[in-house]
Amino acid sequence: MAEPKENLQMEKIVSLCKRRGFIFQSSEIYGGINGFWDYGPLGAELKRNVKELWWNTMTREREDVAGLEATIIMSPAIWKASGHVDTFSDPMCSCKACKKLIREDQWWTMMCEQSWVQSLAAIVEAGTNQLSGEDLLKWAKTKGKSLAPNLALVRNPEVTLSWLAEDVEKGKRPADAKEYFQYLATEQRGATGFVKPCPHCGGELTEPRPFNLMFKSHYGPVESDENVCYLRPETAQAIFVQFKNVLETSRQKVPFGIGQIGKAFRNEITPRNYTFRSREFEQMELEFFIKPDEAVEAIHGSVATVPATGHPGEPQPNWGWQTWHQYWVEERVRFYEGIGLSRDTLGFHHQTPDELAHYARACTDILFKFPFSKKDEQGNVKGDELEGIAARSDFDLSQHQRFSGKPMGVFDEELRAAWGKLPKEKQDDLWKRYYDHRKNYMTKSGVEAEAAQKQATEDANGLAKGQYVPHVIEPSAGVDRLILALIANAYTEVTKTDDKGKTDTTYVMKFHPRVAPIKVGILPLLKNKPELVKKALEVRDLLRPWMNVYYDDGGSIGKRYARQDEAGTPFCLTIDFDTLGEKPELLDTVTIRYRDDGKQERLKISELRDFLLSKTR
Amino acid sequence: MAEPKENLQMEKIVSLCKRRGFIFQSSEIYGGINGFWDYGPLGAELKRNVKELWWNTMTREREDVAGLEATIIMSPAIWKASGHVDTFSDPMCSCKACKKLIREDQWWTMMCEQSWVQSLAAIVEAGTNQLSGEDLLKWAKTKGKSLAPNLALVRNPEVTLSWLAEDVEKGKRPADAKEYFQYLATEQRGATGFVKPCPHCGGELTEPRPFNLMFKSHYGPVESDENVCYLRPETAQAIFVQFKNVLETSRQKVPFGIGQIGKAFRNEITPRNYTFRSREFEQMELEFFIKPDEAVEAIHGSVATVPATGHPGEPQPNWGWQTWHQYWVEERVRFYEGIGLSRDTLGFHHQTPDELAHYARACTDILFKFPFSKKDEQGNVKGDELEGIAARSDFDLSQHQRFSGKPMGVFDEELRAAWGKLPKEKQDDLWKRYYDHRKNYMTKSGVEAEAAQKQATEDANGLAKGQYVPHVIEPSAGVDRLILALIANAYTEVTKTDDKGKTDTTYVMKFHPRVAPIKVGILPLLKNKPELVKKALEVRDLLRPWMNVYYDDGGSIGKRYARQDEAGTPFCLTIDFDTLGEKPELLDTVTIRYRDDGKQERLKISELRDFLLSKTR
Repeated sequence: MAEPKENLQMEKIVSLCKRRGFIFQSSEIYGGINGFWDYGPLGAELKRNVKELWWNTMTREREDVAGLEATIIMSPAIWKASGHVDTFSDPMCSCKACKKLIREDQWWTMMCEQSWVQSLAAIVEAGTNQLSGEDLLKWAKTKGKSLAPNLALVRNPEVTLSWLAEDVEKGKRPADAKEYFQYLATEQRGATGFVKPCPHCGGELTEPRPFNLMFKSHYGPVESDENVCYLRPETAQAIFVQFKNVLETSRQKVPFGIGQIGKAFRNEITPRNYTFRSREFEQMELEFFIKPDEAVEAIHGSVATVPATGHPGEPQPNWGWQTWHQYWVEERVRFYEGIGLSRDTLGFHHQTPDELAHYARACTDILFKFPFSKKDEQGNVKGDELEGIAARSDFDLSQHQRFSGKPMGVFDEELRAAWGKLPKEKQDDLWKRYYDHRKNYMTKSGVEAEAAQKQATEDANGLAKGQYVPHVIEPSAGVDRLILALIANAYTEVTKTDDKGKTDTTYVMKFHPRVAPIKVGILPLLKNKPELVKKALEVRDLLRPWMNVYYDDGGSIGKRYARQDEAGTPFCLTIDFDTLGEKPELLDTVTIRYRDDGKQERLKISELRDFLLSKTR
Repeated sequence: MAEPKENLQMEKIVSLCKRRGFIFQSSEIYGGINGFWDYGPLGAELKRNVKELWWNTMTREREDVAGLEATIIMSPAIWKASGHVDTFSDPMCSCKACKKLIREDQWWTMMCEQSWVQSLAAIVEAGTNQLSGEDLLKWAKTKGKSLAPNLALVRNPEVTLSWLAEDVEKGKRPADAKEYFQYLATEQRGATGFVKPCPHCGGELTEPRPFNLMFKSHYGPVESDENVCYLRPETAQAIFVQFKNVLETSRQKVPFGIGQIGKAFRNEITPRNYTFRSREFEQMELEFFIKPDEAVEAIHGSVATVPATGHPGEPQPNWGWQTWHQYWVEERVRFYEGIGLSRDTLGFHHQTPDELAHYARACTDILFKFPFSKKDEQGNVKGDELEGIAARSDFDLSQHQRFSGKPMGVFDEELRAAWGKLPKEKQDDLWKRYYDHRKNYMTKSGVEAEAAQKQATEDANGLAKGQYVPHVIEPSAGVDRLILALIANAYTEVTKTDDKGKTDTTYVMKFHPRVAPIKVGILPLLKNKPELVKKALEVRDLLRPWMNVYYDDGGSIGKRYARQDEAGTPFCLTIDFDTLGEKPELLDTVTIRYRDDGKQERLKISELRDFLLSKTR
């Protein structure tokens, strides 16, 4: 069966990434380690640029966001409060025959990747008109060893396939391959439930059990239950637990955010899709803390209405969580557009109430259409997640308040002053709504009814005095996924046919100049002319303090252009005899060549720095 | 007993770091986690700046260094090859009474910190003339509970102290407190060996056992011996295992380096001195690969002689490992000087042959004189390690070649060509020296004599054909230690006495502008004058794309200056009525105020960007 086109595309990308030093398999000389990837020289630069841009956009260039850099290993109590110890798990089956482990929710995808399943599915889906029972038997025999060794079908193919053939002839054939497996398993075992076969060997899978995805270790010299620790599965929790420290030291007031970039770890059962789902990855997370809507309404009379679509503009004090949520979705899309991912390469998924956690009010995923992204029933590619922007209510800070016993609320003088001026009915209304919300949170979090009522009463009384636990909007992005998206988006094949009809394919990585690992290639026309080399090195030294440059004097100019095209360098500067004044009017000018269209023009050396900075920043 | 001055200084620094948001205790609301520290908003910026400067200096601004960003979790086989699984351990004792764990090499330091040891030591060191046996008994009784509860001295003070008194009177008193403990233990137990008392309770410590410092975890869904993994205890090994991939994709040739910045983890038994020795930390490491001296000599006739002191200048092809080592020591000192650590704040430690690992040829530690650094016998502060620059021979690549079975050598055409032209005696001499070196490495690494001879013969024959395993110089710096050094170095108290004789102490963090978290504070003279605010925001928006700025309109100008002084902001710009043209000749100028001397002058807004960039980059 032919390789699907998207996998071929991925293979080419993986190959270029290795060949040009974007991405290597971790520990490759030792056979690698599944789910871990290293960034080579170009990849490391690309990643640095992306992180730097996020940091600048999200913290340095904003008045209302402060930065944080917390540790990967934190108190284990944090992961009890966040729910990760108890519920951060995937359902996992193991095969009774080959002992391999399978994530239950990936079972069907994995099945579909097995050639024996594809063959069998083809038969089933071919239907009654095209295959007789005899055909099936014949087919099964020719396939022989490519069938799963432990599947009952293989252990006793004549019987199984004669059943199937009979069914096919009687028109009892199940509608599709997935149903067929269910049917087959039921029939053969005489059981009523569906026993899933192992995608690897066809053996029987166990019922799924939860498997915690956190990497576990121990700190301090003794390996005991008291000093278990975890590698953080997300960077967000550190922000919540340091909320008060940052608030008190940064002169911020709600609404404000805390941003962090850092590594996180998830012990994925089946890491997949190159660097997309890996076990060690990096996140760029912002927790943006806002007032509860009841406080906004108390202060401003009402909460601003949310625009139907699009960016709501500059933040306003009367925004509620919905407008803030929309604001951050649009800000993040702008960020992606600003580094070359146009809106048509992106997709959106608005989580349905079923998908949302009980405390979440909304979550919008920004997707990118990767080469491996699946098509939906209409044949459209929806994409896979780059970033989720979640409105998480006041759940996180409330949990840490409850578990640590430390107050996580803030005092809002504006609210206190406004509350006193509200009419009684308004006060009662807001009090009741806040009370209901707090009681609901506590009940859902397992607090007993009476205690929940008591605490909710206290909380609502607190609101009337200007106290609340901030709500949060969380734009949470994966660095490695974004790098992969940028690489996939940049990857371009250019096929040229020369005069003699010989075709040649070259590769151009069309990175946006802001993220490109190398901003400019500096090429003396000839290596063996000291005056050209000297001038080229002057140009290099002029630009190098301001951007990543690459000096290259090896091989023909065409070869050097091609090399920079593969590295994704947006600009090349050639220093030639005109630069030295062969044509006097061209003295101290260089040729700039643009990667994407190959166009060339002359620029003055004195103008290079500002020109290139304007393009690459 | 009075707090030693250096600890008081550290306490003040720790307090300022927390108060201003440089450093927080990790997981503080849950009582913290020993050995882990978070960086708050100012600390995160400071750290970013330091890492960025290292990266730029060490990779982007050099032709001969490529970057890498590898994973924290790598194949466990790497740590077998590097020796970390077998030998990366500290000797640890546990107390039979209180069960606490003590690093054997820190025992005496910890003892000295206990007040009961200090008291006892004082008695012993006071000598015969000042204390009688009766004095001792009286003293012991008054001290009562402050003595270690499990120490025999306390269990039976009369007997013990009468022994001591007798000895003191007889002039048999041991020379110092450490010897006294040995004496006491031997006498009391009737044993010949010294049993160390626990610093916490005086109980008996066990013999030391090795304790591996790597954090251990498991990857994949099953916790079995086959999928043990470790958090890297250093970033260096990733560079070695990716050496070939980087070499092949980066167009570098030996000599060249690979740089990496990243987290590493060591499960220290007793994390100490604030962030200096923590369990999670960040490293900036360069592995600079060079030709073996025998290859240099074959190509260039001889190896360059090493200058007696100082920087050897621009790299030359005939440098051997010693000159390269000196070069990197001096380059790294320049780096520290360039971010404000002058040479007199630094110290050096040249490891002695006893201290060096068997494969290392030299290691120079660059030290910083921290407030907690100890004095030597002459009363001089030597300092504690910021960075080690090691000449590690070809040990690392050779180990990975041996353990992975993958060739880690390079082919050097220049060497091959030069070798053919050498006289026979020279060839034999170089062959023999290389052979000896390779045999020595293998024998010391546990390869049997015959196999070692065979392999060394192959290696030396390889050299003659242009093949060798590169040697390496490793400048390895700790980010967190450097941050702490920069903070300690910047910390300045300014005490002023006003007219009424009232003294006031303010704090100025005198960071070098290149590392300062905030480069410039932008202050409108008055908050309630819209035209001043508007102009100030214009200045902010002019500078913000180029550097981290802080806009502050809260409180008096003096208060705002003081706030920026504590944050370490080197420049403040005040926008006043003259900026708006009250004095026409001052239109569009601002007052710049310098943090370190408080001097002020006027600058044109149009010149601000370039002026500030020249100071802060």
